[in-house]
Amino acid sequence: MHKLAVLTGGGDCPGLNAVIRAIVKSSYQEGIEVIGIRDGFRGAVEEDYKLLKLSNVSGILPRGGTLLGTTNRDNPFAYPTLVEGQLQIVDRSEEVISQLQGIGVEALLAIGGDGSLSIALEFAKQGLPVIGIPKTIDNDLMATDVTFGFQTAVSTAQEALDRLHTTAESHHRVMILEVMGRYAGWIALYAGVAGGADVILIPEIPYQLSKVAAAMKKRANLGKKFSIIVIAEGATPLGGEMVVERNLLGRIDPIKLGGIGAKLGEDLEILTAMETRVTVLGHLQRGGSPNASDRVLATRYGVAAVEAALEGDFGTMVALQGQKIVRVPLAEAVNKLKKVNQDEPVLSAARKLGIMMGD
Amino acid sequence: MHKLAVLTGGGDCPGLNAVIRAIVKSSYQEGIEVIGIRDGFRGAVEEDYKLLKLSNVSGILPRGGTLLGTTNRDNPFAYPTLVEGQLQIVDRSEEVISQLQGIGVEALLAIGGDGSLSIALEFAKQGLPVIGIPKTIDNDLMATDVTFGFQTAVSTAQEALDRLHTTAESHHRVMILEVMGRYAGWIALYAGVAGGADVILIPEIPYQLSKVAAAMKKRANLGKKFSIIVIAEGATPLGGEMVVERNLLGRIDPIKLGGIGAKLGEDLEILTAMETRVTVLGHLQRGGSPNASDRVLATRYGVAAVEAALEGDFGTMVALQGQKIVRVPLAEAVNKLKKVNQDEPVLSAARKLGIMMGD
Amino acid sequence: MHKLAVLTGGGDCPGLNAVIRAIVKSSYQEGIEVIGIRDGFRGAVEEDYKLLKLSNVSGILPRGGTLLGTTNRDNPFAYPTLVEGQLQIVDRSEEVISQLQGIGVEALLAIGGDGSLSIALEFAKQGLPVIGIPKTIDNDLMATDVTFGFQTAVSTAQEALDRLHTTAESHHRVMILEVMGRYAGWIALYAGVAGGADVILIPEIPYQLSKVAAAMKKRANLGKKFSIIVIAEGATPLGGEMVVERNLLGRIDPIKLGGIGAKLGEDLEILTAMETRVTVLGHLQRGGSPNASDRVLATRYGVAAVEAALEGDFGTMVALQGQKIVRVPLAEAVNKLKKVNQDEPVLSAARKLGIMMGD
Amino acid sequence: MHKLAVLTGGGDCPGLNAVIRAIVKSSYQEGIEVIGIRDGFRGAVEEDYKLLKLSNVSGILPRGGTLLGTTNRDNPFAYPTLVEGQLQIVDRSEEVISQLQGIGVEALLAIGGDGSLSIALEFAKQGLPVIGIPKTIDNDLMATDVTFGFQTAVSTAQEALDRLHTTAESHHRVMILEVMGRYAGWIALYAGVAGGADVILIPEIPYQLSKVAAAMKKRANLGKKFSIIVIAEGATPLGGEMVVERNLLGRIDPIKLGGIGAKLGEDLEILTAMETRVTVLGHLQRGGSPNASDRVLATRYGVAAVEAALEGDFGTMVALQGQKIVRVPLAEAVNKLKKVNQDEPVLSAARKLGIMMGD
Repeated sequence: MHKLAVLTGGGDCPGLNAVIRAIVKSSYQEGIEVIGIRDGFRGAVEEDYKLLKLSNVSGILPRGGTLLGTTNRDNPFAYPTLVEGQLQIVDRSEEVISQLQGIGVEALLAIGGDGSLSIALEFAKQGLPVIGIPKTIDNDLMATDVTFGFQTAVSTAQEALDRLHTTAESHHRVMILEVMGRYAGWIALYAGVAGGADVILIPEIPYQLSKVAAAMKKRANLGKKFSIIVIAEGATPLGGEMVVERNLLGRIDPIKLGGIGAKLGEDLEILTAMETRVTVLGHLQRGGSPNASDRVLATRYGVAAVEAALEGDFGTMVALQGQKIVRVPLAEAVNKLKKVNQDEPVLSAARKLGIMMGD
Repeated sequence: MHKLAVLTGGGDCPGLNAVIRAIVKSSYQEGIEVIGIRDGFRGAVEEDYKLLKLSNVSGILPRGGTLLGTTNRDNPFAYPTLVEGQLQIVDRSEEVISQLQGIGVEALLAIGGDGSLSIALEFAKQGLPVIGIPKTIDNDLMATDVTFGFQTAVSTAQEALDRLHTTAESHHRVMILEVMGRYAGWIALYAGVAGGADVILIPEIPYQLSKVAAAMKKRANLGKKFSIIVIAEGATPLGGEMVVERNLLGRIDPIKLGGIGAKLGEDLEILTAMETRVTVLGHLQRGGSPNASDRVLATRYGVAAVEAALEGDFGTMVALQGQKIVRVPLAEAVNKLKKVNQDEPVLSAARKLGIMMGD
Repeated sequence: MHKLAVLTGGGDCPGLNAVIRAIVKSSYQEGIEVIGIRDGFRGAVEEDYKLLKLSNVSGILPRGGTLLGTTNRDNPFAYPTLVEGQLQIVDRSEEVISQLQGIGVEALLAIGGDGSLSIALEFAKQGLPVIGIPKTIDNDLMATDVTFGFQTAVSTAQEALDRLHTTAESHHRVMILEVMGRYAGWIALYAGVAGGADVILIPEIPYQLSKVAAAMKKRANLGKKFSIIVIAEGATPLGGEMVVERNLLGRIDPIKLGGIGAKLGEDLEILTAMETRVTVLGHLQRGGSPNASDRVLATRYGVAAVEAALEGDFGTMVALQGQKIVRVPLAEAVNKLKKVNQDEPVLSAARKLGIMMGD
Repeated sequence: MHKLAVLTGGGDCPGLNAVIRAIVKSSYQEGIEVIGIRDGFRGAVEEDYKLLKLSNVSGILPRGGTLLGTTNRDNPFAYPTLVEGQLQIVDRSEEVISQLQGIGVEALLAIGGDGSLSIALEFAKQGLPVIGIPKTIDNDLMATDVTFGFQTAVSTAQEALDRLHTTAESHHRVMILEVMGRYAGWIALYAGVAGGADVILIPEIPYQLSKVAAAMKKRANLGKKFSIIVIAEGATPLGGEMVVERNLLGRIDPIKLGGIGAKLGEDLEILTAMETRVTVLGHLQRGGSPNASDRVLATRYGVAAVEAALEGDFGTMVALQGQKIVRVPLAEAVNKLKKVNQDEPVLSAARKLGIMMGD
């Protein structure tokens, strides 16, 4: 193997640069050249490349973001293209393959979440030698125990809870923190346990508003005049729907965050007459320096992806199972979400601790 | 002097515990007993006291919040009271004075912002020996160069900007951070300079939306495909009004934060067609461990307030001027706000750096 | 079950308070009373108890240390005791058992490392119903995948490496960081990978000084005029011995830290003529707030230990295997150390990244 | 003005990159080109230059260190030079001036401490248009209220104290932290107050060992079985000398840190029989991301230095006095140290708080 390419797709996630660095450094040990593709699959279509030398990855380990840029929109199989002055959706995947082959790329390492890995799988089916590297702060990917970025996001949320705690206590308030997790409640669950939350509400367990209010009052009766609630953005009241704001075009509005947290706050204040405040953590969870665990995991993924490429084990994704990095077929990893089951051990621990889970 | 009392009023602020600790520790050196009053002036009316011994303040220096509790609602001069079964607003200030005198309190140290210090001033006029200690994370108090809590709030906002930076850069987005500052833009200005913002919008300078959009586009033309904007919650577009959401009772709704940031985000996305995201820092700015500067400042205020009490210099507030703690009349400190003037040196520095200030 | 007791033994470790809190909170849910024993087994001999109510563990989750106090010296089976005016070493284990039974304690939860758990095992053999909870920042306990405190220690070391990196680069220096790990190199290995070290030296791989010096020079030839080395306190040069300073009584001197780091620094400066600086992280690794991962793990251990007690599964230790908490016989956990093997995956990854491991 | 040059000299200090960035960004606004000189005055002699464009300073605000490199050794007025095969010390200052003039540099901005600014002053006397920018984490420069880097160093030391606190309390130990400050105790004083130290020992107040030991015992008698001591590296016992280790060449050994802290630890353990542990913070104080205060201050210095250059006000140094940046003659800034006087307000506050200052 003489040359491989790497791209990052989907939402920002702490540890992307650590993966890229590990790919470049371990490739260097093997005498392999690394081509960086800018802005995910957009750069693959538009031949927006950058040679990645050791000097390019020096000092990037602690940095959030991705030096390659990313986007969660462009798909070479359905790419907006000007054809005779008209914007059309065109399949440009073969172009991507011939372009990469044209510059001698023998393997494509795609770092991404469900969306980008699905595209990577399509390319694999078309014969492009592809290795996937799982990325999502939400930790909801099926084939791996943990995804990098998740632990940093949990830390960020836990630090926010530590801050809110003292305010809640001083003011005798209910403080609500809305965290990421549209379909799975991993961040809310882990951060809630780590941050000493009294109530944790996740998409997997529709919450009963009256029971949440009763829990607040019970605490007040015990002399605890404040409470901390963590709620995942995708949580819903029993019988209710996910709160999403839609913009004029009918798409989910990415600017107006905080739907469900604000709704819960209003509902609770009416039901309990306790002062309630809401904070939406939002993009703060995606950015910043990856913590030590994520740096180690991201580095291991990068090294393992180069190994897989060297061994010609294409169409796979690297994954963590127990303490080991393994390879799983890309097809197994995508299109399914890992949710918080009722027998999840951290959920059981939360319940035994007396944390109210909404039901 | 044998006994003094201390209370904390108004919003939570990093460093409150550091002031209380300094009062108790320096009083101990002088043989003075300290009575803590719970939940601000509410506790003063309702005789909710707690003797503060050395052991009570052990280990509280790093902790956010206030061990005494606080409230920003209760005023003894207009206190909701049940009179013959009817809720009435009653002046109970004399009760407070006689109760404190009854247990031998010779001085009241009131830690608070504009609201609590105004009440303290009223008590001073009625003859209660009062010393004020200025508290606001907004840094908008007139008679002191810096208030404790401000620098921690700026740090929190700057750390948020660091996080948003990598996401903005990776996604080529405009990221907007809304910070506290309803009437004065100190947090936005300092955090913006410290966090490398491209645009800083403060209440003192109504912003021209078209110029902000033009600045984004100019950056894009220079190859900078992302931008960071810090906006104070009280900022307004030129000719526009402060964005506040009102609840059913017509009061400003404390739950629905983020009015102006979200508005700016929508406006900009329409004008520039650049992807825009908004984060509202909210209560995260109030909580958490005070940083070293605020701990030193808060400690100095506490020591200085006990000194002022010992010297019988009542009706005053301790304040920082240059490197020194001085005393100023309480009357000078309240009812006026320190705003960011056009000749403020940090504002000038921001402009010379090329930061867009909205005008 | 109506009453259990808990103690913490051995060196300080982030997460001890989180375990205690989880024990008290989950016991409360089960209607069990919890007795805290002060300062490890000393308090068990001397009946130094404290009833732990919910209010005692409120707010302790983020705090380092242990509210019960700890010591790594006292052993009830060989306890220094005044007998007829003479200090003698006496077996007072039966006293401990009868005292605990006298107050109705039905189970003892012992949180500790190798030393304290060995004592716990002896008590189990004598019939005291004991559950062990593993604690060591060194991560070198045999029967569990990870111990709480380890990840916080790794984070602390990684943050130190981040700081040293910029100084090394600015000054073109070799910076050496000595971290904990007398017999096993887990902290050095993980922190080194997470902190971007160029060289990692661990007790399991005696280092060849000439090769380390050659690696520095090779980097300099590649234009990298600085290097970062992480060394475990128990690392040794090939053929050399562990560097320990002994005090007048011949015991290892706990004050004079930093033996091997300083030795390596001197040796390297002579061999390479490159400016070299040494930092010994020391006790900073033990203290401070546990990070989110350790809080979750410690909480799960506490909950699981109460479960084990409820089920009467005594003589066991709770342990993490994969993502699950299991129980293992206490006898399996003690007297063996988990070292970094040559086939440890993180070690392999480090080598493939080009990190010099001393050999 | 069309072109200026900038260099960084002396020890690493958080905020150097922030100054460089501010110089480049405000120069860009004025249409001025900025030449960066590598490794302080070494690069000035050896014409090691680098054009600094906006893109070079993008993203460096949060980064520790200096992108230009630094050294605290080379002096163009006495520069080691090979002359006919012999190493001689040669005055190469005129070369530096003609080289800078040769490439059109109209002003040199020198960021440095006492040493570098002294060299800058010599250049000013020779007619080179020079502006100085004060840099020292020790805060011991005469003409300015605060130097950038100091507040970050204090924060680092305070965070270390927070960590040591919980260990000290859990183990009932005396924990000693040795911080920087060879001649002035500013870091020790501020960090000690911010970190809740019981004893602070600084070079300006020789400490009486017996009194320190007595203070430990007095605390123990009050039931406080632990103590925290901060000691500046240049502190000395009354009648004793500064502890420095000298290497084979008789120079102060920069590797063997921790002289006085370890000495105090041994002395105290013997005198009090209390367990004592020592941590030497060392280089951790110099590195890492500057905090918000230092970023604002460093940025203001950079902007002000460009202003001074534009106005032709050479031979001066920018300085902070109160809330304002002023200019002082370079000659006033160098060769004098600002020490902690007996009437220093923070020292008085420390004493009134009951902190033991060694005397």
